[in-house]
Amino acid sequence: MSNAKPNYLKQSIIMKHRPNGVPTLNDFALEENTIDASSLKRGELLIKVLYLSLDPYMRCRMSLAKSYADPLQEGDIVTGESVGVILASKSEQYKVGQTVCSMSGWQSHHVTHETAPDLYATFNDNIPLSTYLGIVGMPGRTAYLGFKHKAKAKSGETIVVSAASGAVGAIVGQLAKQQGLTVIGVAGSQQKCDYVTQQLGFDHCISYLSDDFEDKLTAACPKGVDIYWEGVGGRTLNAVITLLNQGARVPICGFIANYNNAQRLTGTPMQIIAALENPPEHGFFLVSDWLDEYIEASEFLAQSVVEGSLKFRESMAVGLESAPSAFIGMLSGKNFGKQVVRVSIDVE
Amino acid sequence: MSNAKPNYLKQSIIMKHRPNGVPTLNDFALEENTIDASSLKRGELLIKVLYLSLDPYMRCRMSLAKSYADPLQEGDIVTGESVGVILASKSEQYKVGQTVCSMSGWQSHHVTHETAPDLYATFNDNIPLSTYLGIVGMPGRTAYLGFKHKAKAKSGETIVVSAASGAVGAIVGQLAKQQGLTVIGVAGSQQKCDYVTQQLGFDHCISYLSDDFEDKLTAACPKGVDIYWEGVGGRTLNAVITLLNQGARVPICGFIANYNNAQRLTGTPMQIIAALENPPEHGFFLVSDWLDEYIEASEFLAQSVVEGSLKFRESMAVGLESAPSAFIGMLSGKNFGKQVVRVSIDVE
Repeated sequence: MSNAKPNYLKQSIIMKHRPNGVPTLNDFALEENTIDASSLKRGELLIKVLYLSLDPYMRCRMSLAKSYADPLQEGDIVTGESVGVILASKSEQYKVGQTVCSMSGWQSHHVTHETAPDLYATFNDNIPLSTYLGIVGMPGRTAYLGFKHKAKAKSGETIVVSAASGAVGAIVGQLAKQQGLTVIGVAGSQQKCDYVTQQLGFDHCISYLSDDFEDKLTAACPKGVDIYWEGVGGRTLNAVITLLNQGARVPICGFIANYNNAQRLTGTPMQIIAALENPPEHGFFLVSDWLDEYIEASEFLAQSVVEGSLKFRESMAVGLESAPSAFIGMLSGKNFGKQVVRVSIDVE
Repeated sequence: MSNAKPNYLKQSIIMKHRPNGVPTLNDFALEENTIDASSLKRGELLIKVLYLSLDPYMRCRMSLAKSYADPLQEGDIVTGESVGVILASKSEQYKVGQTVCSMSGWQSHHVTHETAPDLYATFNDNIPLSTYLGIVGMPGRTAYLGFKHKAKAKSGETIVVSAASGAVGAIVGQLAKQQGLTVIGVAGSQQKCDYVTQQLGFDHCISYLSDDFEDKLTAACPKGVDIYWEGVGGRTLNAVITLLNQGARVPICGFIANYNNAQRLTGTPMQIIAALENPPEHGFFLVSDWLDEYIEASEFLAQSVVEGSLKFRESMAVGLESAPSAFIGMLSGKNFGKQVVRVSIDVE
């Protein structure tokens, strides 16, 4: 009946081989183990993962290139945030049935300790659980806090937002519109560009896949570019840097165009911008630079979802086993909006 | 491990006493039974309810007043749509793990047959499951199909939408804006009115709780009213009927202001409007009048959620046991947006 069962089948996806360039399905493997809920130690929780986040930064963890975090080793469970429900608890702070966000990795179940820095309870029931991974999670906080601290936006300025339909870019552009900027998006397909202008309200959105991308971008920015929100690198970066005004700012939260490149330490946005004759204010940032503002950011973002004042979009893959293909697709822009995996809804 | 368990604890909420006027918690009771999954017959499914819908029409079922459906009897499980997941199946059409919408009533689990007319599989993974009960469910279809067939809207006309922040009214008003109408909402609190204008994009929204409601409504409709979307009755109806233009239409999908009234057959919108000297085109409709357009409506609404082209808002109560209080609150407008109950996420 409703008694907790002592044993659970845990599925995990490991990085079997370190990807060389574009990851393939053979770089990943599914492992199965048993978790014995009765073996929890004091302060520990057993969490069943409901939704798993897929984010571009995970590709960096699969590489040996220098980064802000240690790389995965072959055989390691792939890193990732998730939202889940507590199946068993030896914590006084967390109880069975509560929904929590944590850094579970790509797994169906995991055990963590109540003091884990990445563990926190969901705090608003009026938003979908999956949004804790996107607009109300790490990508949303990256957008909100990075824009707040690094863009130094002033009404009337022009901002170019890369990956404009993605989990971070979509929010940055909407925040910029709320503050009275002219907002130019850059995205892949025409369908994404239409979404960015018609639904998200950007002034223009240009496909970096179009032959005359550079000309179109120049035409869309008659007063130059005051802020470039950099998440991609590549062709977009090269086009925007020719348009930067004196005093421009370039917050850099990633450069996905390089992530599948083994030589990704050459030609990063930091290097390209620093080599300019008159470089703008720029810098790579991590959302964790503003840990003490997470609550403010998360509550603002959750309320924006409740009210609909910030729009978001999700691509949902179903089943943990679909995570590798969804991840590989995301790295080439096959997702449309925040990529999430629905790991479980209820059937054990 | 992952074997289906034969027995499940089923919780149900029954109408213990027929409410007299405003329902009270004592009118409801929680019952517990066991469902034996191994006793399913051919074609049957065992569904675990994840989200339960609460809708004003359910109050009508609790009354003996004449209606389009038979009333509940004391001891009956309260009627209601839900979205759930299949725990066990003897159907070839539906499989374990699939998510489905059905008319489960206020229950944690229920058994249904694959041919049940109210059973259908969810069809879009990129929207939250709870939206199948609101904007992509019965209320959304009521708005979309009722507006399409009964409003006969023309660009430039003026529509007044009652219950403007609610599950149906919010969608009607947004559809009317998309078609170029001037849209005036009526709602309860000032907070709801602000949401309706600032987020949903209505031209005006007026609180029926304000002393000078009638004057404000008249001022907001300088060209009179061509369409009145009626879901409430009461003060709103009485104010709007004085403003109706020649040729006006009044689609009636409900009249919540009367539902707690034992004498609700007197003074319905139908009666009040029919008694006018020059009555507008009006009529009570049921979304089931257009069963053959459900797929069209549902797919349009789901895509609108994916894209964000129609906004919605939910009030989520947690736990089946919270359904009675959430329902009672909804009847007096305590909810803000579609009222849903999260019955279960995963812990049995």
